[in-house]
Amino acid sequence: MGSALLPDLGTEIFIPVCAVIGIAFALFQWVLVSQVKLDSPNKNGYNDYLIEEEEGLNDHNVVLKCAEIQNAISEGATSFLFTEYKYVGIFMVGFAALIFVFLGSVEGFSTKPQPCSYDSQRTCKPALATAAFSTISFLLGAVTSVVSGFLGMKIATYANARTTLEARKGVGKAFIVAFRSGAVMGFLLAANGLVVLFITINVFKIYYGEDWGGLFESITGYGLGGSSMALFGRVGGGIYTKAADVGADLVGKVERNIPEDDPRNPAVIADNVGDNVGDIAGMGSDLFGSYAEASCAALVVASISSFGIDHDFTGMLYPLLISSMGIVVCLITTLFATDFFEIKEVTEIEPALKKQLIISTVLMTVGIAIITFISVPATFTIFNFGTQKVVHNWQLFLCVSVGLWAGLIIGFVTEYYTSNAYSPVQDVADSCRTGAATNVIFGLALGYKSVIIPIFAIAVSIYVSFSFAAMYGVAVAALGMLSTIATAALVSLALFGAFVSRASISKVDVLTPKVFIGLIVGAMLPYWFSAMTMKSVGSAALKMVEEVRRQFNTIPGLMEGTAKPD
Amino acid sequence: MGSALLPDLGTEIFIPVCAVIGIAFALFQWVLVSQVKLDSPNKNGYNDYLIEEEEGLNDHNVVLKCAEIQNAISEGATSFLFTEYKYVGIFMVGFAALIFVFLGSVEGFSTKPQPCSYDSQRTCKPALATAAFSTISFLLGAVTSVVSGFLGMKIATYANARTTLEARKGVGKAFIVAFRSGAVMGFLLAANGLVVLFITINVFKIYYGEDWGGLFESITGYGLGGSSMALFGRVGGGIYTKAADVGADLVGKVERNIPEDDPRNPAVIADNVGDNVGDIAGMGSDLFGSYAEASCAALVVASISSFGIDHDFTGMLYPLLISSMGIVVCLITTLFATDFFEIKEVTEIEPALKKQLIISTVLMTVGIAIITFISVPATFTIFNFGTQKVVHNWQLFLCVSVGLWAGLIIGFVTEYYTSNAYSPVQDVADSCRTGAATNVIFGLALGYKSVIIPIFAIAVSIYVSFSFAAMYGVAVAALGMLSTIATAALVSLALFGAFVSRASISKVDVLTPKVFIGLIVGAMLPYWFSAMTMKSVGSAALKMVEEVRRQFNTIPGLMEGTAKPD
Repeated sequence: MGSALLPDLGTEIFIPVCAVIGIAFALFQWVLVSQVKLDSPNKNGYNDYLIEEEEGLNDHNVVLKCAEIQNAISEGATSFLFTEYKYVGIFMVGFAALIFVFLGSVEGFSTKPQPCSYDSQRTCKPALATAAFSTISFLLGAVTSVVSGFLGMKIATYANARTTLEARKGVGKAFIVAFRSGAVMGFLLAANGLVVLFITINVFKIYYGEDWGGLFESITGYGLGGSSMALFGRVGGGIYTKAADVGADLVGKVERNIPEDDPRNPAVIADNVGDNVGDIAGMGSDLFGSYAEASCAALVVASISSFGIDHDFTGMLYPLLISSMGIVVCLITTLFATDFFEIKEVTEIEPALKKQLIISTVLMTVGIAIITFISVPATFTIFNFGTQKVVHNWQLFLCVSVGLWAGLIIGFVTEYYTSNAYSPVQDVADSCRTGAATNVIFGLALGYKSVIIPIFAIAVSIYVSFSFAAMYGVAVAALGMLSTIATAALVSLALFGAFVSRASISKVDVLTPKVFIGLIVGAMLPYWFSAMTMKSVGSAALKMVEEVRRQFNTIPGLMEGTAKPD
Repeated sequence: MGSALLPDLGTEIFIPVCAVIGIAFALFQWVLVSQVKLDSPNKNGYNDYLIEEEEGLNDHNVVLKCAEIQNAISEGATSFLFTEYKYVGIFMVGFAALIFVFLGSVEGFSTKPQPCSYDSQRTCKPALATAAFSTISFLLGAVTSVVSGFLGMKIATYANARTTLEARKGVGKAFIVAFRSGAVMGFLLAANGLVVLFITINVFKIYYGEDWGGLFESITGYGLGGSSMALFGRVGGGIYTKAADVGADLVGKVERNIPEDDPRNPAVIADNVGDNVGDIAGMGSDLFGSYAEASCAALVVASISSFGIDHDFTGMLYPLLISSMGIVVCLITTLFATDFFEIKEVTEIEPALKKQLIISTVLMTVGIAIITFISVPATFTIFNFGTQKVVHNWQLFLCVSVGLWAGLIIGFVTEYYTSNAYSPVQDVADSCRTGAATNVIFGLALGYKSVIIPIFAIAVSIYVSFSFAAMYGVAVAALGMLSTIATAALVSLALFGAFVSRASISKVDVLTPKVFIGLIVGAMLPYWFSAMTMKSVGSAALKMVEEVRRQFNTIPGLMEGTAKPD
């Protein structure tokens, strides 16, 4: 098999150093955002004249008003998240107990070492230990997910009024504040996830020693914890924000005839709170979940491949090395957006973000090549449903790259179908002129059409990565694609692959009735789930409408802007 | 294996006799519908007084007006269908040529007999013969499909004004006319399909002799022809009717403020034409397609099972015997609706139709039992991906029955979710009060929820029928379920099974990259297809809107009802 250039000590240093750089960079960005002062208003008078004339308010009042709205949103989001986390926490503890009981009962809670399932000549740690460690890593994953989402929400509510104030000085300034606050969440999420996973692996390794199969099996709890948490964050926040959005629009725009997002409307603050808890905290947890799941799936497959069998620590942690390199590459790319170029017009923002995507993809391709050739031996074997498949390191490089570039294509297609700069969105807007019916038809058709190219991109990624390196290839391709929503497809396939690998299932034949009905029932589940969440949105929106009507009817001065909504 | 009670001669008589009974019954119903006179108005004055007062028209004028509208719809539908058939005909001839060339080229257009693929000791007919016969049965299937759809449209446009006139005498009379005209199409479709398939098999058998594998392989063309035709009928008619519907509503209801389905609106006739060509002719072709496909799939699997190998003609034609029994059972059930009970209130219609479903399901269960125990030996073998699986006749009975009863459940669930007598539709109607957004959310959620029970019903059917009799069981379960839209799922699985059976594929493993990407690309195709058809509806609706506006603006007297639309 040969050995790689990077010694294990190098790996042990490289990963935490990258993670610390990521965290430090995130904190530095936070400090830069906080340079925009909210409490003591900026008195240099620059451009204040225009604002005063337009708004009939002096500068001090604008800042105060912004600070007030920001505080309302921040308080609302914090209290929503704490309530959500309280309920989810109870569920998670129950789920953790279940994991422990189910995994522990495999060998009747025996504390004696057992012969390994993949090689009866060797001795592995008892199932009870794996149960305990899996439960711990599950809870660690859940907590990391919560922290990622919560910090993201905090910086978002911290930066929103600041972005608004900076926008008075020009779109370029606002863009930099907004971009920096996004970077805080991105870097914290990636670096925290990486550092917790790295430490967990090293700590668990003290107990597991040479039993890497058991070690990485218990590590999978980390991914499960992250994505279970994400599910609640996304769904809970998503229902809340959609209900508030619909409620705000219905009563505010339709019944009271006040503009969209007018702060007199009580549902507007609720809508903004929902955006922060659903689209920011929820998405943060979700991204972390995908990231943790993809890493864990790759680690599990690797642990029963030559990396795990030969105890090649550097090769084993290849997925984490890729993520570490990702942090470095993104740090460089961020500097392009905030320091090397300057945005002057709103129309420049989209091309600037696209440029970011291209720069990071090109740099990351180089980064992947470096990591792959220094950390992975020229040839190694990957567990492939009962056999070991020989893989070359350049094939592994191609697996990650195909995921990365497919992600770029998917990003561009998504932008094409959702940006008002291109014909699809313009066509839908046009169709509004003939009424709601044609609008819904055109809109749905557009949505359906938008999935065609992404599906082909995913199909090609799966085909290439699967052919080169079986399920391990799919898992690392998912890591490469991690910036897009499409990762979910690859991650779920990778998890499925990790499951069948560990469970020693060698085929899943759709010509057997159980598999086939699993397929159709599985295809129906997302609809069931969607129906339940949509129904919840509908019911919550109805309650929101009633509450907003009540406030407009019972609070005097609300419409005139002299009284505040509850 | 033992032999069955019914001799082959009995089968040769029973099937055509049932088919002829079905056709005769359909024609008899047509004669009954034609008893309602349109040209020389019914002068007995019964209830005319009321109509005159309401409409300000005397009875003669009402009848004339109805006849006029009926003629407009009938002419429109006929001319649409002829235009559609012209284009589709060209495509079908091209497709038939392709089938001939592809199948014929398998053995280089050789006219010499070949060793059979399933048993090299025996001699089979050359591929060129199968190519020729497949092409013929393809064209026969397409023509039968066209005839089924066209006759359905004819009786529908023949009965619509008659139903309207009868409605003046009470809902019971109108129900009988409507029900009878539906029965004409149903019986003609089932009986024509059966008789053509039966004759084709018998004629082809003269050439094929003992080579039943080749015989039933060429018969599959019949199913393909039927369903290819159905595709065009459904999509073409569907796009037309939706576009006309949207166009009529937008200009008529929204812009001109005239009632829904007002004949002054030029798009209303177009909408009715569309309903006839899409929902009647198209659905007729579609039903025929499902029926032909399910029968052909069962026949192909049977031809390489013990029925085909032992040349057990009665057992071989079991699917056709089931359909023959279906005609007899439906004939009896129809009498319940039209002769044994009487409808007096609109609210009685839904329960009456439900009663029909239950009666026919119960009777059919008895019918299936009779057919199964007289035509199928106590045990026989079914080809099951390379092996022969032993099946008992009671197991085969359960396969058909589970499909039949699952169809009943699906019918009831569909009714529950689409009838305004139950809470789901009432909830959606309620949600309209808070606007379009909550309405769309509730409506979509309802649509998604409505698939849950049907999917489980289908899953159970597949599991039971697959476990008992492999792909043959699925195909006959599809025949049992044929009354519902859900059949499509079973039929497609049965066709898939027939394909893998004949192609000697023994497994389809989703753990191989090609199968997996086939799965995700396949899952995307319906969205692609939907996007294209919805886009077409949108574009056609826009044109319809413009044309209707033009007619309202340029034809004087149209709004006043004194001039006719183009």
